[in-house]
Amino acid sequence: MEEPRQKKMAIIASKGTLDMAYPPFILATTAAALGWEVQIFFTFYGLQLLRKSLKRIKISPLANPAMPMPVPMPVLVSSLPGMQSMATSMMKQKIKKHGVASLEDLRTMCLEADVKMIACQMTIDLFEFKKSEFIEGIDYGGAATFLEYAGGADVTLFI
Amino acid sequence: MEEPRQKKMAIIASKGTLDMAYPPFILATTAAALGWEVQIFFTFYGLQLLRKSLKRIKISPLANPAMPMPVPMPVLVSSLPGMQSMATSMMKQKIKKHGVASLEDLRTMCLEADVKMIACQMTIDLFEFKKSEFIEGIDYGGAATFLEYAGGADVTLFI
Amino acid sequence: MEEPRQKKMAIIASKGTLDMAYPPFILATTAAALGWEVQIFFTFYGLQLLRKSLKRIKISPLANPAMPMPVPMPVLVSSLPGMQSMATSMMKQKIKKHGVASLEDLRTMCLEADVKMIACQMTIDLFEFKKSEFIEGIDYGGAATFLEYAGGADVTLFI
Repeated sequence: MEEPRQKKMAIIASKGTLDMAYPPFILATTAAALGWEVQIFFTFYGLQLLRKSLKRIKISPLANPAMPMPVPMPVLVSSLPGMQSMATSMMKQKIKKHGVASLEDLRTMCLEADVKMIACQMTIDLFEFKKSEFIEGIDYGGAATFLEYAGGADVTLFI
Repeated sequence: MEEPRQKKMAIIASKGTLDMAYPPFILATTAAALGWEVQIFFTFYGLQLLRKSLKRIKISPLANPAMPMPVPMPVLVSSLPGMQSMATSMMKQKIKKHGVASLEDLRTMCLEADVKMIACQMTIDLFEFKKSEFIEGIDYGGAATFLEYAGGADVTLFI
Repeated sequence: MEEPRQKKMAIIASKGTLDMAYPPFILATTAAALGWEVQIFFTFYGLQLLRKSLKRIKISPLANPAMPMPVPMPVLVSSLPGMQSMATSMMKQKIKKHGVASLEDLRTMCLEADVKMIACQMTIDLFEFKKSEFIEGIDYGGAATFLEYAGGADVTLFI
């Protein structure tokens, strides 16, 4: 009997908000735990997820009217200075309380599980990032790098 | 001649806004009508789409500068209290006028067409939802549940 | 030796913001350059990307708290009238300065590379668009049109 071929997943991570930072890392670590091969291509705001410090990663309460808040807030209130930090802090407390791993931990788990993480060179040039701002152990490439891998993957997702 | 294998689609529904609530249900009902097998994994804000009441599902006009509005509005005006409800109500009227099915109808059509709908257990724990808040006829699972199905699907989408 | 089958990519473009307008066009032109066959289905706000004039395509700074701004801004300031235009203008200058093609150029490259671009008929009806508002050389269809192609594609992405 032939052994089943290893499954492959190719993810584009394009968002830099706290809520949308989790899906690429959670899907990648879960897939790796199932024995899959995974590549994540970080582009646009998603590049923020490869920075050494993840402190900038924030929730935008305005962009997520569906987020359950402890108290209902009119839209104007949620645009007051400080509300963004408050929502981010509340989310982080929830995540910690419920034993969900932090973004930093999930990212380290990805590296340890040989998830290949590729930073989009075009975005780096566009936003004038320095490579020294990013963590070690990542690769650099363009849309063609992503597509060459994605063309042979079983699951492809744009996050 | 061999009969063609049934096509499969695996969707992650991660958004809870009115506009992004439609794509998973429209794609799922259309695929089911074409004879496909479909699974939708509802996670993060997407979990809102499985609540008994869909009244919370709102448009955020701020998050969508490209939305054609009947009258152009400066950004500050669209952050005034009430604008979010007004935009939501305008969208719902348009949808009704043009004979597009309501979210509730589309969701029922999914259940009737045996679209498998899975609520993300981790999100439920994180936001402290109660299972009694969700509709019946759905399953519960995690990222691994999704990936096991998606690994054999023809179309995989993160919405 | 058998020649490898041509790869296929199916994209749904659902966003109408400047930042999310780039990924479908960049991925499509890159794939076409690699010899792939590509279809893009433009739906919801994504339909804006098929309009003759792309001047309405704007960034929403509020929706992207992770966007690196030259000067940090509290959320309230970024909701002041004019900030949306300023952020859009800054992004356009960066794009020009770094030699990234404009949206218009990328779209023309797609047409020249035989990328099939399909406008969602349901969205056209819903927002009461006129076909004369859209560029020539595109097709019109529904979710079933997209799925029939996507079912045989190697890469499927919802943007």
